[in-house]
Amino acid sequence: MSKKIDLNGIFPPIPTPFYKEEVAYDRLALNVEKWSKTGLAGFVIFGSNGEYPYLARPEKLQTVKTVAQTAPKTMTLIAGTGCESTRETIELTNAAADQGAHAALIVTPHYFGDKMTSTALVRHYTTVADRVSIPVLLYNVPKFTHINLPAEVVAELSRHPNIAGIKDSSGNVAQLGEYLNQAAKNFQVLVGMGSALFSALTLGCSGGVLALANIAPAACVSIYNLVRAGDFAPARDLQLKMIPVNKAVTGTYGIAGLKAAMDWLGYFGGDPRPPLLPATEKEKAEIKEILIKAGLL
Amino acid sequence: MSKKIDLNGIFPPIPTPFYKEEVAYDRLALNVEKWSKTGLAGFVIFGSNGEYPYLARPEKLQTVKTVAQTAPKTMTLIAGTGCESTRETIELTNAAADQGAHAALIVTPHYFGDKMTSTALVRHYTTVADRVSIPVLLYNVPKFTHINLPAEVVAELSRHPNIAGIKDSSGNVAQLGEYLNQAAKNFQVLVGMGSALFSALTLGCSGGVLALANIAPAACVSIYNLVRAGDFAPARDLQLKMIPVNKAVTGTYGIAGLKAAMDWLGYFGGDPRPPLLPATEKEKAEIKEILIKAGLL
Amino acid sequence: MSKKIDLNGIFPPIPTPFYKEEVAYDRLALNVEKWSKTGLAGFVIFGSNGEYPYLARPEKLQTVKTVAQTAPKTMTLIAGTGCESTRETIELTNAAADQGAHAALIVTPHYFGDKMTSTALVRHYTTVADRVSIPVLLYNVPKFTHINLPAEVVAELSRHPNIAGIKDSSGNVAQLGEYLNQAAKNFQVLVGMGSALFSALTLGCSGGVLALANIAPAACVSIYNLVRAGDFAPARDLQLKMIPVNKAVTGTYGIAGLKAAMDWLGYFGGDPRPPLLPATEKEKAEIKEILIKAGLL
Amino acid sequence: MSKKIDLNGIFPPIPTPFYKEEVAYDRLALNVEKWSKTGLAGFVIFGSNGEYPYLARPEKLQTVKTVAQTAPKTMTLIAGTGCESTRETIELTNAAADQGAHAALIVTPHYFGDKMTSTALVRHYTTVADRVSIPVLLYNVPKFTHINLPAEVVAELSRHPNIAGIKDSSGNVAQLGEYLNQAAKNFQVLVGMGSALFSALTLGCSGGVLALANIAPAACVSIYNLVRAGDFAPARDLQLKMIPVNKAVTGTYGIAGLKAAMDWLGYFGGDPRPPLLPATEKEKAEIKEILIKAGLL
Repeated sequence: MSKKIDLNGIFPPIPTPFYKEEVAYDRLALNVEKWSKTGLAGFVIFGSNGEYPYLARPEKLQTVKTVAQTAPKTMTLIAGTGCESTRETIELTNAAADQGAHAALIVTPHYFGDKMTSTALVRHYTTVADRVSIPVLLYNVPKFTHINLPAEVVAELSRHPNIAGIKDSSGNVAQLGEYLNQAAKNFQVLVGMGSALFSALTLGCSGGVLALANIAPAACVSIYNLVRAGDFAPARDLQLKMIPVNKAVTGTYGIAGLKAAMDWLGYFGGDPRPPLLPATEKEKAEIKEILIKAGLL
Repeated sequence: MSKKIDLNGIFPPIPTPFYKEEVAYDRLALNVEKWSKTGLAGFVIFGSNGEYPYLARPEKLQTVKTVAQTAPKTMTLIAGTGCESTRETIELTNAAADQGAHAALIVTPHYFGDKMTSTALVRHYTTVADRVSIPVLLYNVPKFTHINLPAEVVAELSRHPNIAGIKDSSGNVAQLGEYLNQAAKNFQVLVGMGSALFSALTLGCSGGVLALANIAPAACVSIYNLVRAGDFAPARDLQLKMIPVNKAVTGTYGIAGLKAAMDWLGYFGGDPRPPLLPATEKEKAEIKEILIKAGLL
Repeated sequence: MSKKIDLNGIFPPIPTPFYKEEVAYDRLALNVEKWSKTGLAGFVIFGSNGEYPYLARPEKLQTVKTVAQTAPKTMTLIAGTGCESTRETIELTNAAADQGAHAALIVTPHYFGDKMTSTALVRHYTTVADRVSIPVLLYNVPKFTHINLPAEVVAELSRHPNIAGIKDSSGNVAQLGEYLNQAAKNFQVLVGMGSALFSALTLGCSGGVLALANIAPAACVSIYNLVRAGDFAPARDLQLKMIPVNKAVTGTYGIAGLKAAMDWLGYFGGDPRPPLLPATEKEKAEIKEILIKAGLL
Repeated sequence: MSKKIDLNGIFPPIPTPFYKEEVAYDRLALNVEKWSKTGLAGFVIFGSNGEYPYLARPEKLQTVKTVAQTAPKTMTLIAGTGCESTRETIELTNAAADQGAHAALIVTPHYFGDKMTSTALVRHYTTVADRVSIPVLLYNVPKFTHINLPAEVVAELSRHPNIAGIKDSSGNVAQLGEYLNQAAKNFQVLVGMGSALFSALTLGCSGGVLALANIAPAACVSIYNLVRAGDFAPARDLQLKMIPVNKAVTGTYGIAGLKAAMDWLGYFGGDPRPPLLPATEKEKAEIKEILIKAGLL
């Protein structure tokens, strides 16, 4: 249980492909093979874009296994294994580790949101980190959870030997700055919003977990490499060019839009699981236009 | 699949008792026996107060089975079986029916809240109601889900032969009125907030699913009976007397407080499952005072 | 400074009529004359429906004067004189009193909402009540202010000799119950949402300040009188019938819709002041349909 | 009416000093003199930190006049003159221009927030910009107004010849990117959150309107100059160092805290106007510690 894991670089939170509502493991493998040639540092399996709340436990484990068997050994596999209860989170995390996950992304429990006080969150994450066999990443995604991980909580948890970093999807750079300021030196902060990648990297973040990286991995990797090389102007220009794409596949059209974009770009996207609605033909056409305009298609 | 189910009366959304974090089925049975002598119309297993997001599937089914084997045959058993995905909701509902549930309470899917449009919600509930063996109740609880079921959606769904009613915990009487106005005649509206029981009943609701009914079943049943008898003044006085108790065990102290109150009143409450924190000794003492003041202890 | 003011009954928060963006005092007088024959207890000048944030100080005072000169002496005139600063609130309240206002409706200051703590609100209202020549009503309208007056604050303020009551537009009956429970005996609670009138009255409220009363004064007064007479069933039926109308003129179409409804019903409504948009012809036709369906036209 | 105004650089939204609740124009002048020697590009009079909702019209104009008479002619004076109504906004803006304001900062009208549609906002800003004698800046501050200016609205308004730029205090860098992407070329985007200055500048913003610049003008100007010179690393380090200070004087302690910090640093801060509470002695001591830690004291 040490923080040996390296979270530098770009990680796509990969969508789960379905065929007739069943997980299409074969197509997942094809997607992973294709992504593996783009310079990505690893994969996040079951970020929000993986529709994790819609998958049963055996499906989750089979998905982790599929990616682990397909991805190059050099890539880092992070599995989203956060559940509402502390005990189920521990159990699922260890099971995912057995299938090949190198680290676990643990979303804040949130159903009883007004009771998820700093004390409750510290206890939850500490108990989980104490009892799992792989490093833990905190996952702050207020858009979906309606709670926010305060910098003080992150600072305290960053001292735990088995808590390696955080994925923050709030889009709030002031808060990213607080995380960077207050956390332990070896704690790694990943930004979870494609439109904030450039800003987060210039501020000192290690990398990004970006829906955008599923459909524009090369662009995201370029932004990362340019900033690392100190070449800010082209990085910024590329970032600005990617903002409309990112907005389309995260905000406006959501996961259905992200999957439609993948279909346009030669990946297998398909439809999300119900109750999520598939993209309409009109929406698919709009997404195509956006991809063309951004030079991705 | 007809709406033969009768939802008149008072239903407590029963807490799930834990002993060393394991479900204490024996104590659950003792609680159910005790509640059964108080005039309640039935039980809601796995409303929010049942900590349903914290239980594994086998635990949920064993809990339903335990209540079904313990409760008098005259009482109506409603199981909370809503999951984020449509398919898992159907599967769990039918499994709960096999264990003895008479109806299913289906919470609005909410993780991808901004995509839970009226169209998505109508499709979800219609698909579920089409494919399950017991009547469905909609469950609107914006406090936890951060989405609200609009009256238009409820009106449309109320025409489905297998959708029998709704539990609305929004506390918004204007919306209760809209539901009553727009829904099909045989659709039954249950209020889900103890402090709004009197108002909801006078407005025409069938009954209530009330955390308060776990600790003050006699008072809730009295309010129900008094309003039904047209005896409004004492019903209102009793309602006003119960408001501070209800606030304590729903808002201020939450489920931990509800369980502490049960312990004071001779039921088995115990601690909630982590990450929920147990009530502190100080909080337990405050809850005791509130119960004494309300004449419950 | 005693609580001699009687707040029983129905009060419309009257819209301010404009002609070419100027206040049309003559038409206001005609409206007041017409409303005065319907059994209303008084008028609220500059509730939110009076577009108070859009009027200059001299316009506000001239409006109060116009109503005071037109309304029968038996009717109670309440002027909305709350400003963001404590000092300006005091000054405007006393000036409105000089023009004939009998009481003042003081909205919660809200621009710096996160700093409007209980301590700040108690100090604000106490200072105002100490220094104005007419009784004060608190005004809680979270829809517009994004802050809520907690029951504890209301309870404390209700003991002040010059704070006579509250208008609560939250639509939350549980909170109305808390106000009634915790406030001083002679403190009068008015509901500020037409769809909650029946529930509020049965719970023990003194009356209502209702946008709906501008266009359906007779129905609102009937609900009031029926509840007072203990005749609940017809009161409830009338309430349910009014809910769609109320929703139209408060939520869906807002003030522009309320004014359009007034125009249909023989009052002078006209357009709101910019930046509020006027109702479109299509919206006006929809409002007409709603009025016809409710038997108001 | 052309966009001749230059918004590059750092602008503090200056607090309004009060002595015994009256505006202390003499101390304001002393503050302005002191700030004028720090490299700031100009002043924003009546941003939110100016407590503008608490000032009467004559006070606002006298304040503008005082700053105009005191500040060097090379500095740009921007007056916050947004009111809820379109007409009052126009009137106040022109009056402020007569007192020496070079540009106007116009907050989104927000009381009737759900009616402030894109259409309403475009009409409001267009009407204002058409009829005022100085260039207009849009002002987006969701924290206080609870509405957000969408990129589409900003893009459309940016084409107006008399709308020169925007101050965006949302802290959302993705949205800043959208503004920069979609707006007209000569439209100037200013960030309104001190902790986001570095990120905003690297992304292409013209400058910042920062509460932080009232107490750390040299640091803010340094960040600006370093980024302009392409010297990113020290700019970032300085930014990270300023984040705790900024959090204290905007979030935690608010305007009272900002004024207390000014008092520690040799400016005249004083107390805010009621209903805002002054900082307690304990808070003042905490603020002192934060200033010392950041090397400002």
